[in-house]
Amino acid sequence: MLQVNLSSSSARVEPFAESLAQAHTWLQEATGRGSDFVGWVNLPRDYDKAEYARIQAAARKIQSDSKALVVIGIGGSYLGARAVIELLESNNYNLRKKNTPNIYFAGNGLSGDAMQEIFDLIGDDDFSVNVISKSGTTTEPAVAFRFFKARLEEKYGKAGAAERIYATTDKARGALKSLANAEGYDSYVVPDNVGGRFSVLTAVGLLPIAVAGIDLDELMRGAADMMETCRRPGLESNPAWQYAAARNDLYGQGKKVEILAAYEPRARFFAEWWKQLYGESEGKEGKGLLPASVEFTADLHSMGQYIQQGERTMIETVIRFGKSASHLCVPHDDADGDGLNFLAGKDMDFIATQAMDGTLLAHVEGGVPNLIIHAGEINAYTCGELIYFFEYACGLSGYLLGVNPFDQPGVEAYKKNMFALLGKPGYEDMGAALRAKLGR
Amino acid sequence: MLQVNLSSSSARVEPFAESLAQAHTWLQEATGRGSDFVGWVNLPRDYDKAEYARIQAAARKIQSDSKALVVIGIGGSYLGARAVIELLESNNYNLRKKNTPNIYFAGNGLSGDAMQEIFDLIGDDDFSVNVISKSGTTTEPAVAFRFFKARLEEKYGKAGAAERIYATTDKARGALKSLANAEGYDSYVVPDNVGGRFSVLTAVGLLPIAVAGIDLDELMRGAADMMETCRRPGLESNPAWQYAAARNDLYGQGKKVEILAAYEPRARFFAEWWKQLYGESEGKEGKGLLPASVEFTADLHSMGQYIQQGERTMIETVIRFGKSASHLCVPHDDADGDGLNFLAGKDMDFIATQAMDGTLLAHVEGGVPNLIIHAGEINAYTCGELIYFFEYACGLSGYLLGVNPFDQPGVEAYKKNMFALLGKPGYEDMGAALRAKLGR
Repeated sequence: MLQVNLSSSSARVEPFAESLAQAHTWLQEATGRGSDFVGWVNLPRDYDKAEYARIQAAARKIQSDSKALVVIGIGGSYLGARAVIELLESNNYNLRKKNTPNIYFAGNGLSGDAMQEIFDLIGDDDFSVNVISKSGTTTEPAVAFRFFKARLEEKYGKAGAAERIYATTDKARGALKSLANAEGYDSYVVPDNVGGRFSVLTAVGLLPIAVAGIDLDELMRGAADMMETCRRPGLESNPAWQYAAARNDLYGQGKKVEILAAYEPRARFFAEWWKQLYGESEGKEGKGLLPASVEFTADLHSMGQYIQQGERTMIETVIRFGKSASHLCVPHDDADGDGLNFLAGKDMDFIATQAMDGTLLAHVEGGVPNLIIHAGEINAYTCGELIYFFEYACGLSGYLLGVNPFDQPGVEAYKKNMFALLGKPGYEDMGAALRAKLGR
Repeated sequence: MLQVNLSSSSARVEPFAESLAQAHTWLQEATGRGSDFVGWVNLPRDYDKAEYARIQAAARKIQSDSKALVVIGIGGSYLGARAVIELLESNNYNLRKKNTPNIYFAGNGLSGDAMQEIFDLIGDDDFSVNVISKSGTTTEPAVAFRFFKARLEEKYGKAGAAERIYATTDKARGALKSLANAEGYDSYVVPDNVGGRFSVLTAVGLLPIAVAGIDLDELMRGAADMMETCRRPGLESNPAWQYAAARNDLYGQGKKVEILAAYEPRARFFAEWWKQLYGESEGKEGKGLLPASVEFTADLHSMGQYIQQGERTMIETVIRFGKSASHLCVPHDDADGDGLNFLAGKDMDFIATQAMDGTLLAHVEGGVPNLIIHAGEINAYTCGELIYFFEYACGLSGYLLGVNPFDQPGVEAYKKNMFALLGKPGYEDMGAALRAKLGR
């Protein structure tokens, strides 16, 4: 069971008991700010079982008829699936020999070279597309979908393409839903009451995750068990209460940056998912811990210097995973030129654990409070736990901070400017004004 | 030619003219703090031409006899090569069909699963190893090298393995140099006067980069041209002076975080290299901008909210690359359900440029000063320019900040603790004290 250890921080959590109880009620009863978007709170129990079965069937079909799946989405329609697939399979998932399709993430940017590369990597292989967009009009995924839809139709004909396009979108409205209805695409729901960054356990995340061969039942079971844990009010028994309170207390003490650290390269995109979750939920009204991430021990040799001795404004949250699947023991070497024979026969987990403890002591001594999350061995169950834990703690934490954790008003600014500069109908005046500002 | 544009920031650079001139002299004449480590300043002109030829010959041999190269190194012995290979080839380099070997980076962490995965990915393929370590005793690479050396010797015998091991290390001393001499490994030099984070244009970076098929001559030519540019004193003509002054001025104005942004997914590890360069050079004595990075437009849908409306303590440095190699134009769609026909026929570069400009205006309006680096089209020449530009600006910037830009005293703290906890001979007392602190 996931546990939070605050003993290496100076965080005082008790003063938050009352406001945590309030925030907890707001989440449980959907009565706080942004309560139209707390559908994720009971999702691991109340998810649509019929759709869940359809997702698994679709995954089997894609596994049987495709060598590649192109997942088109941006932000929450991208990071959750990639985070889970990399953590549970590998950051080298596509490189591995396996009996599941390669998975390429597209439509999360505007690089032509990156899109061309996916075309090249797919080559003549059979492929399918999962396009994920609530509205169907977000520029990046919509543009990418135009390209991949055209390629599918060229390769398989219009009817054949329609059988290879899986649309995850609004249940009733919007451009993508209309298209799915018109063309007969298999379609899945982005629920109205679940924002993008909380959507990994909906069809948004689950379909690509299932295609990668991950056990959805275990993922959901871990999330459901953590949901039960997080329903219990009280600082002693609820790890989400502990984490939410600790990070708010440290923020109140003047800390400005939270660095998420893990000692596994395949946790890199899990950290990216976490950055969106916390950055987008809390970074508003001039407030919020800035979320950053590092991969240890690699980044102890890059960001380590700064963490140890730079500006003293950061806290570090370390996810500690349990035993690894491999059991590699350091080889003995007669010459012992590197002086490492004292490690011969020791396994990598033992060495990594000493590195974790040594780093903990060094960073705390250097003035960086450490919050430790013991997450257990990496598997679908513990991944489900970890996802729900971070989500619930995020909802609480945003309320403690005094913001609406479920909106993202700042994301619109660049989009509007981009539309205007792109010449989108209706934005002509704004476009002229912006071009003047840019001096062109 | 690389250009810096400061017009979207409130930075005042003129007040730094005098201290820049001083810092410039310290770098050019090797008379400032840490001057034992400014060998990189003239490296693009003064590099060892004979070794450079040996590197290219070794790369050809590896390309001819190996399907994979394992590059063992951490920090500066890892990030530079990975940054350049991903930027110039692809972040999917290994996935691509190509006539150069796959390149796996090992020894940059302590994950047993990550190491086991490399064994699995190599399988029965022929492979070689480039082990990069000044001392030969840094734990992570030394441990990894024990594993890969054992595997090579098992597969090819001791003599056969020796022909597939390339050691980049001290020119005369240390465990790895001794071993290379004893076993007859081909060996290359980590110069005494070039620190790890400045070493990408030495054998440390160049051998793996050459194996990936990148044109070293162009890379070095770009660096050499930028070296000439950076030798010119004066704020008008020297982009490194401009960038160093701007970031120090903004730091003085109270900014605490610098986010490096690029609109290309393959620049992700270039940003990681940059983070080490600046974080390790400046993050000391309780000072320094915290370096962070984002990949746009993807992260506009994750970190974008925070950047737009979170704590107002950040600046953004944007690398703008020129035209992409692909020329993809948005397909027309008769139904126009997504309303994007106003973009039909436009190429991706055009759309990306409007996104860059729209984001620039939005972020500046939101209170985030933007420094823009126009880097030209992505190729080996411009990559060489960009590397040298960031290095030279970093040396200047550290001097402006008042620190020694060339040491990294804080990196030792975790290492010593780790040695003590691992039971390294000589650290027994410290180990007992640390275990007591940990309560075990």
